[in-house]
Amino acid sequence: MGIKQLAAGSYGIDGVYIQGAAAVAGPKEGRGPLGPYFDRVWASENPRGGSFEQAERELLRESQETVLQKTGMTWADIDLAVGGDLLDEIISTNFAAREHARPLAGLFSACAVFAEALAAGAAMVGGGGPRTVLVSAVSHNKAAERQYRYPIELGYQRTPTAAWTATAAGSVVLADRPAPLAIEAATFGRVIDFGLKDPNDLGSAMAPAAVDTIGRHLDALGCSVSDYDAIFTGDLGQLGVQLAVALLERGGRPPGNRLDDCGRSLYHLDSQDVHNGGSGPGCSASVFSGYLVGSLMSGRFRRLLLVATGALFSPTTYQQGESIPAIAHAVSVVHRGESS
Amino acid sequence: MGIKQLAAGSYGIDGVYIQGAAAVAGPKEGRGPLGPYFDRVWASENPRGGSFEQAERELLRESQETVLQKTGMTWADIDLAVGGDLLDEIISTNFAAREHARPLAGLFSACAVFAEALAAGAAMVGGGGPRTVLVSAVSHNKAAERQYRYPIELGYQRTPTAAWTATAAGSVVLADRPAPLAIEAATFGRVIDFGLKDPNDLGSAMAPAAVDTIGRHLDALGCSVSDYDAIFTGDLGQLGVQLAVALLERGGRPPGNRLDDCGRSLYHLDSQDVHNGGSGPGCSASVFSGYLVGSLMSGRFRRLLLVATGALFSPTTYQQGESIPAIAHAVSVVHRGESS
Repeated sequence: MGIKQLAAGSYGIDGVYIQGAAAVAGPKEGRGPLGPYFDRVWASENPRGGSFEQAERELLRESQETVLQKTGMTWADIDLAVGGDLLDEIISTNFAAREHARPLAGLFSACAVFAEALAAGAAMVGGGGPRTVLVSAVSHNKAAERQYRYPIELGYQRTPTAAWTATAAGSVVLADRPAPLAIEAATFGRVIDFGLKDPNDLGSAMAPAAVDTIGRHLDALGCSVSDYDAIFTGDLGQLGVQLAVALLERGGRPPGNRLDDCGRSLYHLDSQDVHNGGSGPGCSASVFSGYLVGSLMSGRFRRLLLVATGALFSPTTYQQGESIPAIAHAVSVVHRGESS
Repeated sequence: MGIKQLAAGSYGIDGVYIQGAAAVAGPKEGRGPLGPYFDRVWASENPRGGSFEQAERELLRESQETVLQKTGMTWADIDLAVGGDLLDEIISTNFAAREHARPLAGLFSACAVFAEALAAGAAMVGGGGPRTVLVSAVSHNKAAERQYRYPIELGYQRTPTAAWTATAAGSVVLADRPAPLAIEAATFGRVIDFGLKDPNDLGSAMAPAAVDTIGRHLDALGCSVSDYDAIFTGDLGQLGVQLAVALLERGGRPPGNRLDDCGRSLYHLDSQDVHNGGSGPGCSASVFSGYLVGSLMSGRFRRLLLVATGALFSPTTYQQGESIPAIAHAVSVVHRGESS
């Protein structure tokens, strides 16, 4: 077990394993192509009828309880909870932590927070600190919409470049106990700002950050895109992925069909009216905890790079005319097959 | 160098040292009793005339640049920046990171974020990851007021229990290179909610969280309050400290005069019209980086526990009738005198 700095912000990690993962999603996400990979799919966006914010934290709690059930653990086995969400003051994460009452390291990195939490959690377990960490992230479409955009009731038209904030949560338990999937490396992102200002085109704003992190990560590990079976960005969507591919090709790292995107994969883009694709912390969290962990376990991928992406603006910075800085954090997962 | 889990969320840390610290404060804070300990004091709350949010991130950047100057470092020497602030989407931390372009782990823990960042940064350096981490936090009175309360222009009356969000920033460089002050242990807080609902009395809401973390920290280390020369909570203010003392006494840990509070210390409570005392992430960040590090270096304190406190509500949760959950993170600093 150990952690070693390979370059600034990039760490090789030894002896940190995924004990289990769980994803819970809303009805629209359940009808998408990855629906079969979710542990639970809600029948409605707000089954208990409270506020959307309460629904978001319930979604988070359900993903946390589900991964504990799947791993045969209880909250008492968790040394530290690490995670975040998109709501102001990360209220979903904090209010859920009020219930479980385990030590909490709350993070904010917008839609990139799930990979940030995996990276921080794995670094601390690998360093010899906590033995068992629960990593999670969540978003809810209606709670995000009214914080960032307009009341749903307004019925405004969305632009073709706009993404659909996923109603979904993902949770992963990391620990030093050997298991088939290991977190072998992680890279914390830098804040990159190409000057874009359109909050309805966040995929384009985030693509340069994803490309920066992918490049730094590969350089630090001394490997190339072809060393990964798949590289999944967080929520660039179909337009952002095209931009990322172009930037990677220009940088001499053509990803070919290895590059895919959680947001592009979450919905049927031709029929579910999500335009650019899915977004929100719950997008990469649920796609990783459902589909990607499943694909690693089944052998479809043997080595995977998750590069969750986040746009770091707020309604205040937008109204003040600022551009939209972005960040991407990367986590490298490998199927070691060390145990069943 | 190393890190060892002593109990869930509590870590003994070996070989992580404070390379330097810097505090920058606004004019009101500069006129307070700790004014002489700040590296820079602004002549006005908004010397450049932009938005208050821009002033807040400028304050953060100045504290970061100042600690780099004091330690003879440049941004290229920083492997990872760790920190947060109180504004939605931690825009101060994220926009400042756009300028320095170093890898960033952004955190949110309301006014407790500085201790959370010290704990996470020290855990990662101690674990063998980053060698040099820059930890910082900031708040600006006017930016916080308009996010959480009312426009300043309204001229509303503040209640006697209300705190004054500090216009201040603090930055610390942690590294594995021996220096007089060592981070020897840290404890991540649990979210505690005693059901209080008054956003103008956050000291009372946060006191139980501070007491919980102090108790867990002392139990994990197998020591008592008398093993510390001083225990500084973050921003309980004069009323919250009284409550914390009462709770500690009831729990069999009477702190005597060892317990003090950054928020109670930052202003002249009798003449500066701050009512309960200072608050905000910049409160504990600047008091620690200025006064407390100075007191440890001068020998006034040999062993100190910083217990930064945070109220984890948002305007949305308040409007939805929720109570105010709170958290406190603790960091133990000792003067080892291993080098000059």
